[in-house]
Amino acid sequence: MTTRLDDLPLRDDLRGMKPYGAPQAALPVALNVNENTHPVPDDVAGDILDAVARALRDVNRYPDREFTALREAFADYLGEGLTREQIWAGNGSNEVLQHLLQAFAGPGRTAFSFDPTYSMYPLLTRGTGARWVSGVRSHDYTVSPASAAEQISEVRPDVTFLCAPNNPTGTPMSLDVIEAAYDATEGIVIVDEAYQEFAPHDAPSAVSLLPGRERLVVSRTMSKAFAFAGARVGYLAADPALIDALRLVRLPYHLSALTQAAATAALGHADTMLGMVDEIVSQRDRISATVEALGYQAHESWTNFVLFGGVADPAATWQALYDRGVLIRDIGIPHHLRVTAGTADETTAFLDALASIGSGS
Amino acid sequence: MTTRLDDLPLRDDLRGMKPYGAPQAALPVALNVNENTHPVPDDVAGDILDAVARALRDVNRYPDREFTALREAFADYLGEGLTREQIWAGNGSNEVLQHLLQAFAGPGRTAFSFDPTYSMYPLLTRGTGARWVSGVRSHDYTVSPASAAEQISEVRPDVTFLCAPNNPTGTPMSLDVIEAAYDATEGIVIVDEAYQEFAPHDAPSAVSLLPGRERLVVSRTMSKAFAFAGARVGYLAADPALIDALRLVRLPYHLSALTQAAATAALGHADTMLGMVDEIVSQRDRISATVEALGYQAHESWTNFVLFGGVADPAATWQALYDRGVLIRDIGIPHHLRVTAGTADETTAFLDALASIGSGS
Repeated sequence: MTTRLDDLPLRDDLRGMKPYGAPQAALPVALNVNENTHPVPDDVAGDILDAVARALRDVNRYPDREFTALREAFADYLGEGLTREQIWAGNGSNEVLQHLLQAFAGPGRTAFSFDPTYSMYPLLTRGTGARWVSGVRSHDYTVSPASAAEQISEVRPDVTFLCAPNNPTGTPMSLDVIEAAYDATEGIVIVDEAYQEFAPHDAPSAVSLLPGRERLVVSRTMSKAFAFAGARVGYLAADPALIDALRLVRLPYHLSALTQAAATAALGHADTMLGMVDEIVSQRDRISATVEALGYQAHESWTNFVLFGGVADPAATWQALYDRGVLIRDIGIPHHLRVTAGTADETTAFLDALASIGSGS
Repeated sequence: MTTRLDDLPLRDDLRGMKPYGAPQAALPVALNVNENTHPVPDDVAGDILDAVARALRDVNRYPDREFTALREAFADYLGEGLTREQIWAGNGSNEVLQHLLQAFAGPGRTAFSFDPTYSMYPLLTRGTGARWVSGVRSHDYTVSPASAAEQISEVRPDVTFLCAPNNPTGTPMSLDVIEAAYDATEGIVIVDEAYQEFAPHDAPSAVSLLPGRERLVVSRTMSKAFAFAGARVGYLAADPALIDALRLVRLPYHLSALTQAAATAALGHADTMLGMVDEIVSQRDRISATVEALGYQAHESWTNFVLFGGVADPAATWQALYDRGVLIRDIGIPHHLRVTAGTADETTAFLDALASIGSGS
């Protein structure tokens, strides 16, 4: 007799739920989860491997619980005079966000963001027992400073997420929105800059807003710009006191010695990796221009992906692309699909496949 | 003006808490956190490095969310006819235990174990918002089947932890205690076998009890027997339906491609690593015999450490050993200290230092 999940004493709030996750299909052109489709260059991989080899020499010992060298490398990378006392990291930015929610949300508390946004926020929030509330964006997915302040003042969230630039829409968010949001709440404000490296070079990061704002957090990931999705490294910058709060909720030794070594080595090649970002940005802009020419509407993107509207039947278009070996993402916005900017060849494959299906409605 | 932790909107239940963790002091002989003090042998490290090099080739992509190859390797290693559908893993056994508590404990629920035991259980439990209840052990730290059943029947926990053999006491737990505990509850029973490889070769694992017990979980770690504390790899075996429950609470892609590759490669050298375990066991038994000869009382240990009593002033003895370059652990049991079995040289250094201090009370 086979046991079913419902036969187990599972928590009531988990009953009937399905695990999160985009399908992992082995298609020739996978542009569905906003990965950096460029492999890590050989010389960078060589340095990473040397660092891992050194870490393996005492892998029998627990890792540095404070991942000091890695925090210093992140502080150097982010600049703005940051020190390692202002840095935290985890196994992917999801874990970093989970630490923030464990410290500042949880039962009886509320977290908030503007829909549509990164779909993990409500899942992570509810996972800590906190309540999730969604706000709204304008028709072009922007949020004005006044609207942000008004919505936040009304909801009074303990934690506010600002995905800047926004996933899944690509929409930029200017610093005045972040300032208005911060001033409208006594809670924690998390600016999720997972895609910040794909913004224009002169676009300021919310890191510049940290001085004097002890409730502000700027989170980042190495998954995108650093082509490190497989290594699972997310991080954040904030006031040292806020970092202390995260030490209360993290699992001891949560970041492995191999992860620390690999990430520190990769950060030493930031210039090389950011050069790759420029190439991805040019492919993103090519996607935007070409889907517009095909009769779709590309939303402004400061990320490594493009959300485009004017899709009569997203499920049918998704399937037609799938049948042509191209995997993109239907993220549930009516008449829209989302595609990651790949290499030049992958981008061409996507655009050719889309053109072969017919034009936008 | 410096911000203090109390100035931030921290959760009330975290106010005043201190982060968990043994001091990480750089002493010549570190026998304080039950690490395997033998480095990974060169040929094993070489294979691990080759596997990491292969994983780096597509580290720009998200890792296999189902870590299929690693789950197969764990099933093979544990034997008993297990298949990969019965295996789960995380970044250290703490994360695996956290997943279990997120699925089966949380607000309004209760977790339980017999004191003294692994100090992370109550921390992990409270971290999910659940209540923690401690039971008691006999004077020799054993628990009889009747006592286990009686205590569990009274508390009615949703999750019961059985640390077998027990940390920090080293005490074995026979399968009849586990069976009695299981029959006394309708909740989840977790047998934490972090130290099982250090038990006598003919001592059966609780893995043999899994068939027909869909609420039973056996957790393990690679930190000890596999000398992999720095790599952070814990795992468990249970009914496939119970594994499905953990998929609901884990963070997506929680296990990095580098971790998956390194752990799978290390498991391919299980015979080599278990040979090292035999050497550690012989040092453990030497510690037990020698501290007894020095007038202390060594508790029976099936682990890689020895808890010994008869210490008049544990803090003073700990400090005297520290001053001699030997780091062991005062785990808060009156008149007791705990020491990890190291290499032959490290063990000699500890025993010589202890002898130089004087004999037990």
